[in-house]
Amino acid sequence: MQAPGTPSGTRDFSSCEMMRRNYIFDAIRGVFRLHGFNQIETPAMENMSTLTGKYGEEGDRLMFRILNSGNFLSRTKLDDLHSEDYRTLSNRICEKGLRYDLTVPFARYVCQHRHELTFPFRRYQIQPVWRADRPQRGRYREFYQCDADIIGSKSLLNELELLQIIDEVFKQLNLRVVINLNSRKILTGVTQTVCKTDRISDVSAVIDKLDRFGMEYVTTELMKKGVHSQSIASLEQLLFMTGTNEEKLCRMKEVLAESEIGMEGVTETENILKKISRSEISTGVEFDLALARGLDYYTGTIIEVKSLDLESGSIAGGGRYDNLTGIFGLQGMSGVGVSFGAERIYDIMDKFGLFPENSTQGTKIMFVNFGDSESEYLLPIISSLRKGGIPTELFPDAIRMKKQLAYASERGIPFVGIAGEAEISCGKIVLKKMQTGNQENVAVEDIVAFVQNCNTTPDS
Amino acid sequence: MQAPGTPSGTRDFSSCEMMRRNYIFDAIRGVFRLHGFNQIETPAMENMSTLTGKYGEEGDRLMFRILNSGNFLSRTKLDDLHSEDYRTLSNRICEKGLRYDLTVPFARYVCQHRHELTFPFRRYQIQPVWRADRPQRGRYREFYQCDADIIGSKSLLNELELLQIIDEVFKQLNLRVVINLNSRKILTGVTQTVCKTDRISDVSAVIDKLDRFGMEYVTTELMKKGVHSQSIASLEQLLFMTGTNEEKLCRMKEVLAESEIGMEGVTETENILKKISRSEISTGVEFDLALARGLDYYTGTIIEVKSLDLESGSIAGGGRYDNLTGIFGLQGMSGVGVSFGAERIYDIMDKFGLFPENSTQGTKIMFVNFGDSESEYLLPIISSLRKGGIPTELFPDAIRMKKQLAYASERGIPFVGIAGEAEISCGKIVLKKMQTGNQENVAVEDIVAFVQNCNTTPDS
Repeated sequence: MQAPGTPSGTRDFSSCEMMRRNYIFDAIRGVFRLHGFNQIETPAMENMSTLTGKYGEEGDRLMFRILNSGNFLSRTKLDDLHSEDYRTLSNRICEKGLRYDLTVPFARYVCQHRHELTFPFRRYQIQPVWRADRPQRGRYREFYQCDADIIGSKSLLNELELLQIIDEVFKQLNLRVVINLNSRKILTGVTQTVCKTDRISDVSAVIDKLDRFGMEYVTTELMKKGVHSQSIASLEQLLFMTGTNEEKLCRMKEVLAESEIGMEGVTETENILKKISRSEISTGVEFDLALARGLDYYTGTIIEVKSLDLESGSIAGGGRYDNLTGIFGLQGMSGVGVSFGAERIYDIMDKFGLFPENSTQGTKIMFVNFGDSESEYLLPIISSLRKGGIPTELFPDAIRMKKQLAYASERGIPFVGIAGEAEISCGKIVLKKMQTGNQENVAVEDIVAFVQNCNTTPDS
Repeated sequence: MQAPGTPSGTRDFSSCEMMRRNYIFDAIRGVFRLHGFNQIETPAMENMSTLTGKYGEEGDRLMFRILNSGNFLSRTKLDDLHSEDYRTLSNRICEKGLRYDLTVPFARYVCQHRHELTFPFRRYQIQPVWRADRPQRGRYREFYQCDADIIGSKSLLNELELLQIIDEVFKQLNLRVVINLNSRKILTGVTQTVCKTDRISDVSAVIDKLDRFGMEYVTTELMKKGVHSQSIASLEQLLFMTGTNEEKLCRMKEVLAESEIGMEGVTETENILKKISRSEISTGVEFDLALARGLDYYTGTIIEVKSLDLESGSIAGGGRYDNLTGIFGLQGMSGVGVSFGAERIYDIMDKFGLFPENSTQGTKIMFVNFGDSESEYLLPIISSLRKGGIPTELFPDAIRMKKQLAYASERGIPFVGIAGEAEISCGKIVLKKMQTGNQENVAVEDIVAFVQNCNTTPDS
């Protein structure tokens, strides 16, 4: 029989991994909540009409499609099978696909439920998405996104709020990060005045690759798009300019003096930086013209968060979009959102040992099973421990004590309770602290308080 | 443009629904944790080889299949398309399918990770499953299951533990239920001694339908399977027998005196009932010979939970299986599990208004926005409220106050903070309680404590 496994690019999560993942999700969720965001969920499947064409050619290619139920060939003639390529055929036999991100389903949600929602609408959503990417180290076909968006308000206070959220989440997770900030409006101005072209999303897409492929690549690509080499030289100077945020924005003002949209971007960015300086945000925020973000729907501020301790691409990002819901027929809904990459955050925290010891604590006390009558004596004690909020187990089988202790040790259970005839007769429990091996006699009526007050970290 | 929507049989969950769903999930998760169960997660997709043939013909038909990525026709000759029916073809072009329940992925998980796990292994799992059922009222194509299983121990203490979990979950949710109990071993004994046939799973499957289709249906079906009408008459008497659990089991002992496996089932059931009587379980537990459960993998105790207030089928169920992992090559792993039906529990709680008022509380206080300088004054106050654990919003736009109040009211935000020039100059905030309209002046330094201590239920 073939050994069973998960499909390529997907993973199981063990209980230890789940506790650590939940530690991250809980931190993010907690901050979202404190900022008044409410959770929604959308189905794993969306109609292909909702998904198709929203993520460019690559997205359409990497979408997981779901075969129509029943006779999926019923609406396909055999002749079509001959004449059609597999892409056309897949559209015929698959009406549904798996969610590719949380943003398009969110836009669909806002349109569909517009009459039930109160705007500005703040929602958060933590759900898996699926992409048929080539599986490789650190890249999976199923991964979680954690998104928060405010839609229906143009106020820059919303940008500030998302930056506060980023600051608070990473402080809570003990992760040192930097926030890079730019504006699509500034990029548009630069494209028009410096690169002297209107191919804004093309130029943005190329700049977005600077980080990964270097300036030589950017030069070649921009020349292909018809940008003059002198323009590219001026652009290079801007992309690599150094100095404080004020100095950089001063420089941008000179460059963009003639560009209305560019100046708008500079003013907004200055305004956001001013708000940040007066807030409690202590994470560094740097204006970075080279930050472009690949996604076409951004129209204003763009944000990206990177670890200061590990080169790992962005671990969170977001931005403002003016017309996300337009694709579904709802115009004039400006919004701004942020998305946390839980898997990358996990990998960094794991590498640097940032998960607190107690984040993987499951059962706190296990009782040894000596047989039916002893178990019966223990059951009400176990109930009272659980009522006191203490995860408690009774080993189910009366096997050798050594084996039961080995189970507790492997599971990382910090306390083992032992009650044989002698202890039962005098209303006591022997409590064994697994880390030290120390044993203590505790009266039955004191056990809940005793375990509640016992610290289980190594130095206790 | 076509109005966007979710695929047939799937749903969005609004923030109010999410809060209520989380209220249920949190209750279940909390009880699982207190009993020492640890969470795992498995991918949404499984290889078709893992899924096929595990759920009978119906399951294979209702499985959602995922089209292979890239050129899914590459391994299919055009001639095959002619000669094959759509089922055979679907197996060729789809190597993966969506999870149909949590039990088969759990069995796969245990086999795959057997060398990393500590047995007895207690896991819980709360994830959606997908079935291409005909969508109808209360039946969805995507729904959540909440499963807890202990695998690797034959002790009846595990059955007791699951019954305790059921008791605690429904007490916490304030739902009045009854637990029905039976044993596949008793059903096997009855099939052999009363029905005089070895077609145990056939007879169980028919008995399983008694509840829905009545005795006439059961009679017809059993006769089709070759059961004698006299046997059916004896069976009917047993299926409809009344009395206490003790009386019923006494009767079963007479009937099953000659059946070793039947007597084993009776003894086990008596043992479990004895354990229950000495536990703190206060939910009624009734032995019910007519409880059969459709699933083939059960071999011992079977359990089903029904609401006492609404006829709605079972809202939780489970049982013992001796060879679940055998299908993947791991023999001799006895286990017992319980599964909670979150959607049905939701529907009943919704119908009877059992969700506590505060289960849908999001933002607790919103501040009116009067413009930049007032907002700046408010930002540190808002931060301190959030640090105090209070979900807080600042309305992002300085629009008319009436509109801002309407937003707070629609969102169900209990408090609105107002700070104009006058309040700012004397370090106060006007706190408006939305439910009563009452206003109160609160000093800035007192506001966190004030809001923390304020009850927001109607009678406060």
